[in-house]
Amino acid sequence: MTKPLFETVALIGIGLIGSSLARVIRAKGLAGEVAIATRSAETLEAARALGLGDSYFGSNAEAVAKADLVIVSVPVGASEAVAREIGPHLKPGAIVTDVGSTKASVVRQMQPHIPDTAHFVPGHPIAGTEQSGPQAGFAELFEGRWCILTPPAGTDAGAIARLAEFWEACGSTVEEMDPDHHDLVLAIVSHLPHIIAYNIVGTADDLEAVTKSEVIKYSASGFRDFTRLAASDPVMWRDVCLHNKDAILEMLARFSEDLSSLQRAIRWGDGDKLFELFTRTRGIRRSIVEAGQDTDAPNFGRNAPKTDAAE
Amino acid sequence: MTKPLFETVALIGIGLIGSSLARVIRAKGLAGEVAIATRSAETLEAARALGLGDSYFGSNAEAVAKADLVIVSVPVGASEAVAREIGPHLKPGAIVTDVGSTKASVVRQMQPHIPDTAHFVPGHPIAGTEQSGPQAGFAELFEGRWCILTPPAGTDAGAIARLAEFWEACGSTVEEMDPDHHDLVLAIVSHLPHIIAYNIVGTADDLEAVTKSEVIKYSASGFRDFTRLAASDPVMWRDVCLHNKDAILEMLARFSEDLSSLQRAIRWGDGDKLFELFTRTRGIRRSIVEAGQDTDAPNFGRNAPKTDAAE
Repeated sequence: MTKPLFETVALIGIGLIGSSLARVIRAKGLAGEVAIATRSAETLEAARALGLGDSYFGSNAEAVAKADLVIVSVPVGASEAVAREIGPHLKPGAIVTDVGSTKASVVRQMQPHIPDTAHFVPGHPIAGTEQSGPQAGFAELFEGRWCILTPPAGTDAGAIARLAEFWEACGSTVEEMDPDHHDLVLAIVSHLPHIIAYNIVGTADDLEAVTKSEVIKYSASGFRDFTRLAASDPVMWRDVCLHNKDAILEMLARFSEDLSSLQRAIRWGDGDKLFELFTRTRGIRRSIVEAGQDTDAPNFGRNAPKTDAAE
Repeated sequence: MTKPLFETVALIGIGLIGSSLARVIRAKGLAGEVAIATRSAETLEAARALGLGDSYFGSNAEAVAKADLVIVSVPVGASEAVAREIGPHLKPGAIVTDVGSTKASVVRQMQPHIPDTAHFVPGHPIAGTEQSGPQAGFAELFEGRWCILTPPAGTDAGAIARLAEFWEACGSTVEEMDPDHHDLVLAIVSHLPHIIAYNIVGTADDLEAVTKSEVIKYSASGFRDFTRLAASDPVMWRDVCLHNKDAILEMLARFSEDLSSLQRAIRWGDGDKLFELFTRTRGIRRSIVEAGQDTDAPNFGRNAPKTDAAE
């Protein structure tokens, strides 16, 4: 057996991402020992029942005491409180990272509390599902996905390299990025899609002339796709909205401007303009499938052809 | 062998829906003979090569001459031209239906051209994928889905019942609805989701500060879901926008109003309001899964857990 990448990894937070990390660490032997801490006693008990770690702590401070790598997987709004708790208890040379969906805010919240004797390398695995909690995780979540690291200037190159090696062992490809640029990119590829999905599901829920049962029955015509994103963890997404406000407001403004223009084309019957947009967007889908970031099966493979009677 | 439901079915248009009909008719023996007509010589040749029918026509008028059931599966903007062509050639007692995504406009376009000796029963199977053309169809497309019929007042009850029996044999459940109510329901469950998806993909495509390669690489964080709908057939969706204008503009207005309110909550940091909406929308997802209209597998089953190392 090869030497694990880290002696002890502490996982702070054991939801979808934390518990997927616990599983892949175990599956690939990436740590000698996994220490798990989470705020909720019930969730900690669930993690213990699933056998996700080697030791379990109600206190974040105790969990990190022996750790060479600390991975904070909590809603971004809780980042500062966690950093304040663990800061004084970090082992010299420990690497502290996170998995939060916003990065500038996490850096602002956590960095002041991480001592100079530890290495702070913020991160964001671009992976997830609409489900949450320790039961929802699985070892393959990070396979074939990207992980973005946003180390502050002057961060120890060796620490960055070790963390990158960890994510690569989880199946991901690592990129470095400036935190502000990360937040702008994620605002368009992730935050805006979630906000739009939540919004349209809310709009449908509020209609008087169309019943809820009709919305549900006929949802396969498009609506159901949005409900997946709109079923994501509400605390996580509330915090994303509050902590990436500027980039999200910028993207929302652009989206609304474009939508007004599209609405005008519909009102005035400008078929050419509609056709031009509806054609252009097909190319992006093709590129995503070619990049291995989505399936090319129709309907995401949900009702794939089983047999073809005509052939 | 039991007697087929119809002696001869004529399929006008042989794209995703038409070719799926051809396949299910063959697979379940629903017709003695299938006559296929389509405007494009190339598409007709593709249908012939796939062996989708028994006879092939460049002329819609010739294709319907012997038919007991005529199913028009063309972009809704082409409905009037097709009705004008086939009207004088319909067999007495023939049933004429369509599969268009808007109904009031189709009734306005087609009804004046259908003679009193035939039965006009407009329809809309709530089924599809983002792919198009005769290669994209499959026999199971309509299984477990709804099909809405919107017969004008006074339509022969026997004709409605025979068409309903046909759709049930295809695996669907049939509902009757008023055309205007259909258009309102579909505007929220189908038309608005497609328009929003096209719009957000267009917004992302136009950004200067985020590269197209970044949008594609990190699309698994939400964006890729929208690109599926935004890859749908541009002609079909241009016509839907032009032919269900009033209901779509009404839904767009409500959506934008709600989005402005959500944007305001983000700007002013109203976490409670965000949390309330993000929690409420989860329930709708649950109902859709319980109604059998979507999978409960995370990520639509695209990267389902293969093994669970921790258990």
